[in-house]
Amino acid sequence: MLMDLWAYEEHNKVRLQFKVKETLYVGRSRYQEIAVLDTETCGRLLLLDGMIMLTEKFEFVYHEMLVHPSMFLHPSPKKVLIVGGGDGGAAREVLKHDVEEVEMVELDEEVIEVSKKYLPTTACQLENPKLKIHIEDGVEFLKRAPEGSYDVIFIDSTDPVPGGPAIGLFNAEFYGNVFKALGEDGIAVAQLASPYTDYIFLGDYYRMVSRIFPIARIYLAFTPDFPTGMWAFSFCSKRLDPVEDYDPERYLSSGIKTRYYNDEIHKAAFALPNFLKELLQGKG
Amino acid sequence: MLMDLWAYEEHNKVRLQFKVKETLYVGRSRYQEIAVLDTETCGRLLLLDGMIMLTEKFEFVYHEMLVHPSMFLHPSPKKVLIVGGGDGGAAREVLKHDVEEVEMVELDEEVIEVSKKYLPTTACQLENPKLKIHIEDGVEFLKRAPEGSYDVIFIDSTDPVPGGPAIGLFNAEFYGNVFKALGEDGIAVAQLASPYTDYIFLGDYYRMVSRIFPIARIYLAFTPDFPTGMWAFSFCSKRLDPVEDYDPERYLSSGIKTRYYNDEIHKAAFALPNFLKELLQGKG
Repeated sequence: MLMDLWAYEEHNKVRLQFKVKETLYVGRSRYQEIAVLDTETCGRLLLLDGMIMLTEKFEFVYHEMLVHPSMFLHPSPKKVLIVGGGDGGAAREVLKHDVEEVEMVELDEEVIEVSKKYLPTTACQLENPKLKIHIEDGVEFLKRAPEGSYDVIFIDSTDPVPGGPAIGLFNAEFYGNVFKALGEDGIAVAQLASPYTDYIFLGDYYRMVSRIFPIARIYLAFTPDFPTGMWAFSFCSKRLDPVEDYDPERYLSSGIKTRYYNDEIHKAAFALPNFLKELLQGKG
Repeated sequence: MLMDLWAYEEHNKVRLQFKVKETLYVGRSRYQEIAVLDTETCGRLLLLDGMIMLTEKFEFVYHEMLVHPSMFLHPSPKKVLIVGGGDGGAAREVLKHDVEEVEMVELDEEVIEVSKKYLPTTACQLENPKLKIHIEDGVEFLKRAPEGSYDVIFIDSTDPVPGGPAIGLFNAEFYGNVFKALGEDGIAVAQLASPYTDYIFLGDYYRMVSRIFPIARIYLAFTPDFPTGMWAFSFCSKRLDPVEDYDPERYLSSGIKTRYYNDEIHKAAFALPNFLKELLQGKG
């Protein structure tokens, strides 16, 4: 018997589907359902509560674009915090840079364990001695983080689904604590949503962070892992402008290998289509 | 009975699916199968030989990005040719500019008729007196087009499927005729494919047009209508560089309304991720 299995994510009655060869792991942690499937053409696929987190083939896009724009902008990113990111992809990209310490606050230890076992190319730096992992809720961790203790904070969470584990990572209280925990050149970056489907959330979120950070911007990447293929990230900064203050030489002379990010992509990612500009200005 | 109908396009075992409310039209012309479906959330959807051509909700992205980068670059685009484009979306965007005449060479008259009947917002300019429609094969039309007769040529065809009606629009003979038919500032733009799935085609195509045109570039747009959401267009030019020779004032002072295209998007669209640069250089 040949089963015709497809894994999919659906937003607004549009689905992105991957043909599945084999189910490698399905389990329920204290917080969510975790599944790893082997797809026909995109390598292994990680689902959390049915939401696609990554495919092995394409996760480089999301992880590079989450991490490198701010790591190549901050003049000296030595202390980095990752909220979420249990699969290890964000840590892998951060650790390409000359950092002193990376802390990761992951709520769900089982995501880390499953990723180490089933997603070795993504999780490859989770044993790096520079990485310090806290198994804890990011919201609580940020409440008591010492002031000015991080250069860059990445919020690499699941989507803000009501009742889901990430909902507390998208409100003003959390961003107030993120602001306090950042140093004077501090930058916070978060994965958001697709502007094509989640525009109400995106507009509200953008106006919220704009009240907390002097510089708040949205940038984009082509993410074939996620529905619509257009993914938004937020860039919140105390002082540095992501385009004006960017020096392409930092990347060009770094020797860091990337498959998506480069100096031209850095600037291009911050160019937004008219419909999205209007949405962020509250006219959408 | 509630039927669970989904229309989809599949590339490399990844599917993009739209929930269908109703089938409005299905027919077979001399050249291809034409279908118009009403979707739950993206308006009407046009399929040619099962390939998604557009949804009413999102077609603005593809049509604006096919047309405006070269129309705002060419110093005075008065005579424009569209090869294909029977749905009328490309003509609608071209006719926002101060052109003298737009010719359209569409092989399949039934695509035009079906679009006029079922896709009125896309087909809205198909009766414009500046538009001259030839029902003919674009390959044959270009063979006998007078030299230097067009400022810009758009190739708005289906994909180059072996045995399909568009296969002759992607080879060196055709591009040689396109080159001859263009004036001295001439630009040819074609819709291509997704760099995430059709990379072999894209690399071969790029090297072919690079041998014919002094300036050949690839640019990108976020197209939620098409699988992976990343769509490539080719820009082939006799003299003008799409970024160096671009004057943002042309757009900013034009009064032309766009929902995706703007002066920042123009430049950003030509920034390519590393994996795609390597592919075009033959290293992919």
